[in-house]
Amino acid sequence: MYNQATVQSPATIANIVCGFDVLGLALETPFDEITLRMVEGPSSITIQNEDEFNLPTQPEHNVMGAALLALLNTLDVTYSCHIVSRKAIRPGSGAGSSAASAAGIVYAANAILNQKFNTNELIEFAKHGEFLASGSRHADNIAPAILGGVALIHSNQPLDIVSLPYPELYIALVHPQIEVKTSDARAIIKQQISLKAAVNHWAHVAALVAGFATKDSALISRALQDDVIEPVRKLLIPHFDLVKSKSLEAGALGGGISGSGPSIFMFCEHLTTAQKVAESMQSIYNKHGIPALTYTTPIAKHGVRLTHLQ
Amino acid sequence: MYNQATVQSPATIANIVCGFDVLGLALETPFDEITLRMVEGPSSITIQNEDEFNLPTQPEHNVMGAALLALLNTLDVTYSCHIVSRKAIRPGSGAGSSAASAAGIVYAANAILNQKFNTNELIEFAKHGEFLASGSRHADNIAPAILGGVALIHSNQPLDIVSLPYPELYIALVHPQIEVKTSDARAIIKQQISLKAAVNHWAHVAALVAGFATKDSALISRALQDDVIEPVRKLLIPHFDLVKSKSLEAGALGGGISGSGPSIFMFCEHLTTAQKVAESMQSIYNKHGIPALTYTTPIAKHGVRLTHLQ
Repeated sequence: MYNQATVQSPATIANIVCGFDVLGLALETPFDEITLRMVEGPSSITIQNEDEFNLPTQPEHNVMGAALLALLNTLDVTYSCHIVSRKAIRPGSGAGSSAASAAGIVYAANAILNQKFNTNELIEFAKHGEFLASGSRHADNIAPAILGGVALIHSNQPLDIVSLPYPELYIALVHPQIEVKTSDARAIIKQQISLKAAVNHWAHVAALVAGFATKDSALISRALQDDVIEPVRKLLIPHFDLVKSKSLEAGALGGGISGSGPSIFMFCEHLTTAQKVAESMQSIYNKHGIPALTYTTPIAKHGVRLTHLQ
Repeated sequence: MYNQATVQSPATIANIVCGFDVLGLALETPFDEITLRMVEGPSSITIQNEDEFNLPTQPEHNVMGAALLALLNTLDVTYSCHIVSRKAIRPGSGAGSSAASAAGIVYAANAILNQKFNTNELIEFAKHGEFLASGSRHADNIAPAILGGVALIHSNQPLDIVSLPYPELYIALVHPQIEVKTSDARAIIKQQISLKAAVNHWAHVAALVAGFATKDSALISRALQDDVIEPVRKLLIPHFDLVKSKSLEAGALGGGISGSGPSIFMFCEHLTTAQKVAESMQSIYNKHGIPALTYTTPIAKHGVRLTHLQ
């Protein structure tokens, strides 16, 4: 019997340009660290945040709390739980901060419970955290956070997640420190599109999946187009077009809005290119007086990692 | 210098359920046979049809004529051309009959012209034939007819064709002998769709491409869904739902309308399964007094084949 687990839960990029609502991938960095202590006893969850983000500590209003409650509610036994969370993924960045919290906590609980639940069950529990954060039970951050790599949400109901083949690629990510609420970013999107635009979009996603599978960088680059969501959402992100065009000049294959923004990500074939792209991103926001953080990282082969179990 | 070429040009299946307007594949059978004789001289095209279909013989009103004219118009020299066509792919079947004619003739001309044109140029010429047949310059039959295998039309303008990886699969195809005009089948489709339906559709096409690439039959089967086009177009095809459900019972992985119909195709893992599925298809149309032809064939690795050049 275990009663304490520590996990590292990664940042993720949902949508991946032409994969709106269906694709997501995991990053090696940044990641959150979560320690869960869980012992049989009166039902309770206490949350201790060891970071600067002032997230709620009432379980019903906390992403980890909501996900853990969903899991605990299926058990016959009650547990007293204490969570210590050290977030590195900034809430509101568009890099899967809430998914890292939700995926991390259910993964930790499952380790303590001796792998009682399968991956799909964990994703379903974690969706409760996403619902609290954004009003939507989407899995395109949670699935790659748990599975690593690139994940396709083939269906949400019933859940059908596919781990896609993909080549070694590096990501440059910039997080301009402005707020874009996921709910606003969703509200701005038109709910009807032309069949022509839809056909172009599914040609792009088909090409991206093919490019990943055949490790064809030129094809990946050509496939990274989005004329449906990006033209609307980019309006919420200052200097988006400039960041994108300068990134391509610096050697990126392509990229776009991470999740619902404001972070912007670019795929690169080499770490050195990703570093050049990140420098270019940083300098644009510096010049315009907008505080920004940049990251360069490979796509993570693994999702949540268990670092301690006792 | 050559002046006569004979080619075999294959039937093709466009759309492939969730790949509307962007995917197509080539079949080993049936195929048309076309002989082109082409000698420098006064500009002329004569067409001799050695089949039962009574297709037009004026070059401007004939699919082969229109495609060949588009090619000849780019040359500095004029040619006197004579075409002998023996079609096996029935016009109006939805199995790429016009594409086989258009692709075959430009492929034959290109052999005589010592490979003067590249594949993309041939596809552009052949599109003139498709335009004549259907009023649309689509490449989702022409591209697989020329390239073989499974082709993704990533972009029509500029042309960007991707040959996709795919596993060994067999096709059962039934052609109920009723007429569905491509133009009618296009007119029936709604030009606006909900974003939700579009997202589901691009999840399916992403899953199908992934399933092909990883040779995952179960994934291919789950991916073969179309809630956008099929629900409308199947209304033009008698007993569509029954053919589909009985095919799945007989062991097919899935399938749907071939091109714009009325043919229906099913993917199968084995030739014996495809034969069982074809029998089931045939018996349904027999029972309802609708004449129907069935075919069982692998996906063709090669497109148009040059069988004779002199």
